[in-house]
This record gives sequence, structure tokens and C-alpha cells, in this order.
Amino acid sequence: MFDRIALIGIGLIGSSLSHAIRQKGLANHIAVATRRPETLARAEELGLGDSYSLSAADAATDADLVIVCTPVGVVGAIAGEIAPALKDGAIVTDVGSVKAHVIAEMAPHLPDRVHFVPGHPVAGTEQSGPDSGFADLFQDRWCILTPPDGADADAVERLTAFWRACGSNVEAMSAEHHDLVLAITSHLPHLIAYNIVGTAADLETVVSESEVMKFSAGGFRDFTRIAASDPTMWRDVFLTNKDAVLETLGRFTEDLIALQRSIRWGEGDKLFELFTRTRAIRRGIIEAGQETDAPDFGRHGAGEPGPKPGE
Amino acid sequence: MFDRIALIGIGLIGSSLSHAIRQKGLANHIAVATRRPETLARAEELGLGDSYSLSAADAATDADLVIVCTPVGVVGAIAGEIAPALKDGAIVTDVGSVKAHVIAEMAPHLPDRVHFVPGHPVAGTEQSGPDSGFADLFQDRWCILTPPDGADADAVERLTAFWRACGSNVEAMSAEHHDLVLAITSHLPHLIAYNIVGTAADLETVVSESEVMKFSAGGFRDFTRIAASDPTMWRDVFLTNKDAVLETLGRFTEDLIALQRSIRWGEGDKLFELFTRTRAIRRGIIEAGQETDAPDFGRHGAGEPGPKPGE
Repeated sequence: MFDRIALIGIGLIGSSLSHAIRQKGLANHIAVATRRPETLARAEELGLGDSYSLSAADAATDADLVIVCTPVGVVGAIAGEIAPALKDGAIVTDVGSVKAHVIAEMAPHLPDRVHFVPGHPVAGTEQSGPDSGFADLFQDRWCILTPPDGADADAVERLTAFWRACGSNVEAMSAEHHDLVLAITSHLPHLIAYNIVGTAADLETVVSESEVMKFSAGGFRDFTRIAASDPTMWRDVFLTNKDAVLETLGRFTEDLIALQRSIRWGEGDKLFELFTRTRAIRRGIIEAGQETDAPDFGRHGAGEPGPKPGE
Repeated sequence: MFDRIALIGIGLIGSSLSHAIRQKGLANHIAVATRRPETLARAEELGLGDSYSLSAADAATDADLVIVCTPVGVVGAIAGEIAPALKDGAIVTDVGSVKAHVIAEMAPHLPDRVHFVPGHPVAGTEQSGPDSGFADLFQDRWCILTPPDGADADAVERLTAFWRACGSNVEAMSAEHHDLVLAITSHLPHLIAYNIVGTAADLETVVSESEVMKFSAGGFRDFTRIAASDPTMWRDVFLTNKDAVLETLGRFTEDLIALQRSIRWGEGDKLFELFTRTRAIRRGIIEAGQETDAPDFGRHGAGEPGPKPGE
């Protein structure tokens, strides 16, 4: 599909792309670049590329497709670094969780002779680093592309075909709409999860940390998965999608205060109505193919053979 | 271990207890009672008991151990119903997610000739009803007992042995401490999850419900599992553990407002510090045997073969 693909950054997404590209045979050559020598050495041990460099520009040289897979806080610097090395007609994309900021940071650096098509695969786990990737990460997940007005149709088509080959569904929308949609489906959930885990940790004077851990199967442990996500990546997301995050957070808090009031005043009917309505959303997500229908995520572990309904 | 065990209520917990009791051979006879004829008929089809009754008193008659497995809103009525039928020396317990309220409601009805030892297995899935139970639900989870002052030591010991035989770890504490601990490890997480799913559903004017579902793998879908929990059970929990829930919710909101301010003012260091600290809590929970260490809960489904690190 491509002769040479450059992966700039080789964490969860970069390494998963490497596995997917290899598995589906999407490139003759994978050029890996990352800033930290230890990470590059580990990527090489894992065989994630065909060439390795500490220089993003070196990896991008002669690449037909350059995928920037770094935290969004550094994409501007990377764009500036690779710009002179890009070959004519190259496609440049990224995988960042925010899009308007990425475009504002990258586009000014990129020459007209290349095609810039920002992207975001809505997929991940709580793990990070070159060891965490796997080929199926993108399978049946959605990849959102936010091509700017006047983007080259052929480049968008080729990038769409690439993500489909990785197993993804692909949808295009404006960067602004992306940032609002993801604020609610991803950024706010992460913020809430980080916050509740922090609140629990700070309760130590009344409830010990060991009690929080032991009795976490009551629901709390679910939140700790998301709150174990990469700190650098998420700091950058909140700093660069500030407006949409603050807007959805405002709505969340408003709803929460109303719910608090219902509890204080014993309004059981209102609670029951909300708790019934939210059940339907999960059914929709399962029907949309975005979630398992196994109870408890089909969770296994801790010596627990997992739910077997009807056993 | 017991001759006759009565299960009053046969939802997720009651039916899981039935499977566990059968699998481990903990009783000669399981008497099942539930209020709704359809549920009782289904329990009978599933073979969850040795006898079936719409009357809690009938099931409790001659039982050595009576386990009330209903939503906490009705435990007082049940205690009043079974009290005259209880045999001398019977152990009466429950599985409710709140304890002070359960004791206040049940204890006044129960005669001195029986042993009341309230309990709470901290285990569950988002499913409910007699079909949802499975024997391993309690395996490696914690069961909290809150025996009142002067509780019969032998009865506490027998109930502890029962839960251990079901696979649980057992810990005793005061009802008040239980309600505070569970407010943070279970009740607040449920409240937050219900709230964010409600907020997302109400965003429809700016983000469509289908977009919320499609892009839910960004984190949101995790919350929908908890927000799919039984509405009656959870309404009752919030109405009956009001003080502890409002106290922990107040702390959560306070922390969230501080986090919101950090985002607004671009305090990246504060965000990074919190996001790093929360990672450690998950490691502790995994080490405490209360969570799987598989990425993404080892989640399978939607045609996705699941993460295979290092693939």
C-alpha cells in the first residue's frame, strides 16, 4: 500500500501500528523514530521497524506516509523538524486525541507539496510504551479523520484505505466537532476517573488505602484502569482541548449537583428514572459493536474464572 | 454446613449464592422465596432451589441460615414477615450494600432467639435477575460482616466459614465504617458513572447519541457498564446511605473544581502530578488480587480478539 511508512513515536499507538502494518503487509519499510535512546533500543529489540533513528527528520526522509504518534504537546516541534525532509506528495498524519490544536501547531510548518490529513484512532488501553502494542488494537474501532478544507481527495482516500486495512471504521468530520465529541466520549471520562481515584487516595484519614484497594470490586476498580493511562499524553490533552473539556465538564457538574440534591431530598423517582435511562445507552454501545456483552467486561484474573451466566 | 438455607430474593446475589451453595455442598436444602411470580417460576426453571415460595416466611421456616438478598429498601418489611417463622438459634443475615440502615430496619423486628449478623459481599456484575448468577462471583472477593455489639460469636464464626466456603475473604467492621468505606469504593463510583452517562445522553443537541456510542471506546464505554446496574437496588442505596454519599461526593466535587481550575489556568504540572499518583493505586489493586492485570480488563468482544501484548 505504501513503500515507506515513518512512525514518529513508538508508544502504544505507534507500536500497534507497526504490528498491524506488518500483519497486513501495508508497507515495504517501516522507519521508526523516537526521542529517547532507551525507547528506540527497545523498539529495535522488539523488531518494530526496518530502520531506527533518534531523528524524526531521518525517519521521515523518503516516506510516503508519515504518522506522528507522540503526545500532542510536541507535534508542532516535530512538524518543524520533519518539514524540510518530507518528499513531494508525502501524506502526513497524526493520531492525536485533539485535532484543532494539532492542526494549529503542525499546519504552519508543513509545505504545500505534502498532504496533511490529521487523524485519530479512537482506541487504546491503559498501557503505554513500545511493549504495549498489538496488531488488533484498531480492529472494529473508529478512526476519525479531520481533513482541512481543500485537502487532497486522493490523499484522504489513501489514508482511509490504510486505516480500513488496519481493521478500523473511518469517519470524517471537522476538527472542531471532533474535539467536542471526544471531550464527552473520552476526555471527560478520563478527567472524572483521575479525579475520583485522587479523591479516594486523599481520604486516608478516614478510610485506609488498603481498604480502598480491598473493597474496590464494588465499582471503584473500573475507574482505576482509565486513571492508569499515560500522564504525559493526558496532561497534553487537557491543556490543548481546554474549551470543549470545560464546557462538557460544566454540564457534568451541573447534572451532578442536581443529582446530589435529589439524594439529599430523597427524590427516589428521579434517581430511578436516570438509572433506567442510562441502562439503554450501554445496550446501544454493545449493538454498535463497540463493547463486549459479557458481564463485567468478561474480566478474568485474580484467580477468578470469570462470569459464566447460567452456570 | 447448614441443613436448610433460605434465600429471600433470587437476583444476581441470590442466584449466585444458590450456585455456590450447590457447588460447594453447603446445605441439604435451599428454600427460595421471591415476591414476583415470574421470577419465582424462572428460579424454578433454573433449578436454583429445592423448594419455592412467594412467601418469605414459608422459606424461612425451619431454616438454619436465612439470607435476605433483596434491594435494601424492603429489608424491614421482610424482617417483619419472617420474624414469627424463624426457628430458635437461626442465623439471619443479608447482602445489602449499606449496613447502618439495614440494621435500623431489620433489628427491631427480629426476636432475641435468633442471631442477626449483617453482611455485604463486595462483588457483582452489571447484570441482575435469577439468570445472571454464577458460582464464582464471590471467589477472591471480600465479604464484610458488621456484627452488632454482643453478637453471638459462634454465629459470626459460622457465617464467616460460610462466606469463606463460597470463596470470599471475610472482614468484620462497624456498620458505620462500612458505609463510609463503601461510599467511596462503590456508591460514589456508581453515582459518577450514572451521572456522566446521563450528561452524555443529554448532549444530543451538539453531539448525537450515535456519535457517543461509536466513539465510546475512548473511555466512555467503561462507565456505561456500571451505569447499567440495577436501578432499584441503586436508588435504594443512595436513599439509605445519604450522609456518607453526600460527604464523599462533597470531597469529589471539591477536587473536581480544583482540577477544572488547573485546566483553565494551564497548570500542566499539577495535572501531571495527579495523573502519575493515580497510576500507583491501580497497581496496588492488582497486587491486592482484586483486579486483572490484563490490559483493557482482558476485554474481548465485538469481533476483537483482545489485547495480546508483545504480539
